[in-house]
Amino acid sequence: MDGVILTPLKQISNPKGDVFHAMKCTDTGFNGFGEAYFSSINEGDIKGWKKHNAMTLNLVVICGEIEFVIYNENTEDFFEVILSHENYQRLTIFPGIWVAFRGLNDKNMLLNLANLPHDPLESENIAISEIYYEW
Amino acid sequence: MDGVILTPLKQISNPKGDVFHAMKCTDTGFNGFGEAYFSSINEGDIKGWKKHNAMTLNLVVICGEIEFVIYNENTEDFFEVILSHENYQRLTIFPGIWVAFRGLNDKNMLLNLANLPHDPLESENIAISEIYYEW
Repeated sequence: MDGVILTPLKQISNPKGDVFHAMKCTDTGFNGFGEAYFSSINEGDIKGWKKHNAMTLNLVVICGEIEFVIYNENTEDFFEVILSHENYQRLTIFPGIWVAFRGLNDKNMLLNLANLPHDPLESENIAISEIYYEW
Repeated sequence: MDGVILTPLKQISNPKGDVFHAMKCTDTGFNGFGEAYFSSINEGDIKGWKKHNAMTLNLVVICGEIEFVIYNENTEDFFEVILSHENYQRLTIFPGIWVAFRGLNDKNMLLNLANLPHDPLESENIAISEIYYEW
């Protein structure tokens, strides 16, 4: 979908504990480093909808399982993906795209490698009911 | 200890799932972005000793509990810290410092926000027995 990139990530097996790639500065989708932060989402709960007007998100699910729904208001397209160690990919979301995500189990953890530090003025939040999607 | 910074990080409570700060580009200890990757360490296992000659590490334990031991070979000082959500801090380690870490439970996860992409030539590995420490 326009405005979104999915990039498969390496998991490197190690007898003492595995290593999981997230992002290199030379990767497609990297757009500078502003801030890294984590979010968790309770099983069954949904955070969203949110649209960033300036920030590019690079999302990695490092614990548990999270379902993402992306909405492009220009093309009226939806894109849905479930990320976890089973489907270990980085989800890049460019500015201007709506996103919401739902916890599929407890104890999940989502890393956002954002190109800008958090700024509440560059994002918009609307209720989940404002964009119809059959979750 | 010389060569190490511990920075307390915010955990922001949210009824749908908490948010956890990791690093901003304006934070002390930030030295550029080269690569972000995760490591896990089995309960009771130790990874180390490793010394980076060029890379600055910024370490955040986002799941579980991990014990870090740092050794400064110039001052012959040790520094030990256990990181988890209970003691949620970022551990910055500058080049030239030895580090080893032990898993205190299963299902832990460590984020390294490194200022350089991975390069096996800039780090040294020695056996855990090479630097005596009573684990």
